[in-house]
Amino acid sequence: MTRRPADPATIYPLRPIGVLRTPFATRADCPRNGRQRDPAPECRAEIFADFVSGLADLAGFSHLILLYWLDEVREPSLTMTPPFDGQPRGVFATRAPVRPNPIALSVVAFDGFAAPGCLRVRYLDCIDGTPLVDIKPYLPTTDSEPAARMGWLAPHATPRPGCA
Amino acid sequence: MTRRPADPATIYPLRPIGVLRTPFATRADCPRNGRQRDPAPECRAEIFADFVSGLADLAGFSHLILLYWLDEVREPSLTMTPPFDGQPRGVFATRAPVRPNPIALSVVAFDGFAAPGCLRVRYLDCIDGTPLVDIKPYLPTTDSEPAARMGWLAPHATPRPGCA
Repeated sequence: MTRRPADPATIYPLRPIGVLRTPFATRADCPRNGRQRDPAPECRAEIFADFVSGLADLAGFSHLILLYWLDEVREPSLTMTPPFDGQPRGVFATRAPVRPNPIALSVVAFDGFAAPGCLRVRYLDCIDGTPLVDIKPYLPTTDSEPAARMGWLAPHATPRPGCA
Repeated sequence: MTRRPADPATIYPLRPIGVLRTPFATRADCPRNGRQRDPAPECRAEIFADFVSGLADLAGFSHLILLYWLDEVREPSLTMTPPFDGQPRGVFATRAPVRPNPIALSVVAFDGFAAPGCLRVRYLDCIDGTPLVDIKPYLPTTDSEPAARMGWLAPHATPRPGCA
């Protein structure tokens, strides 16, 4: 180890940069994932004014990665039993919200700006008002693995409506 | 809006779940991305004992998404000028570390366990000792967009050695 390792007691301060607007008012309204509804509803990412200048040069990217904080999750757990599976699974082998750090990630289609600081996106599955913490450009050169194997989730894969 | 929107002054507490071990001792040693070196060196994700039970059921996933905190980044900035480009770019249109929340994301190949709690992975580009904050299974059904357009980064795309 070439420098001091992370201390398990450290806390890193994560701050919202904006808010996600979706048609899903409660957890019960949320789809299992953002591709499940066809057509996927348009959602918005509203960026706080202090961060809007960081959105320059997003034009031309067809897809983005959004990271957001699931602030309605109550108790984290290291195992969870998916309703569609019935077996307890290690939480890091799931995309469930009950992880030690409730950060979620969605690869979304980016349909341009509805207004300055307001992005039009598709494929979100979270509750309206969820805090956004980062936006990254999606790079197929490093982010796309179409042949990746899905382990225990393979029999439960969601078909992609409208996609090859 | 169906619930109280995120307050820009909120701080969400993010905690390390482990440490990434890479051959890169300093920022200057790090490749531009984790696919740039061919063959990509083997790296490790060492999970703290408290979280090891959350790793159950990872067997069978060929790729994972790792989220980590770039704790050596000093000053965030809303624009940055990539050395390979020479133009100032909005930070959310880059993968640069100097973002408001210095969270990084890598899609890595998962080569199994070197020991309980110690994952063998490839395609990391960060400094040895970087704190890990989440592990997610990579799902091609929602995470893979091989035809995504790369905007201003298109002329600078890194070829993928050993990949189609």
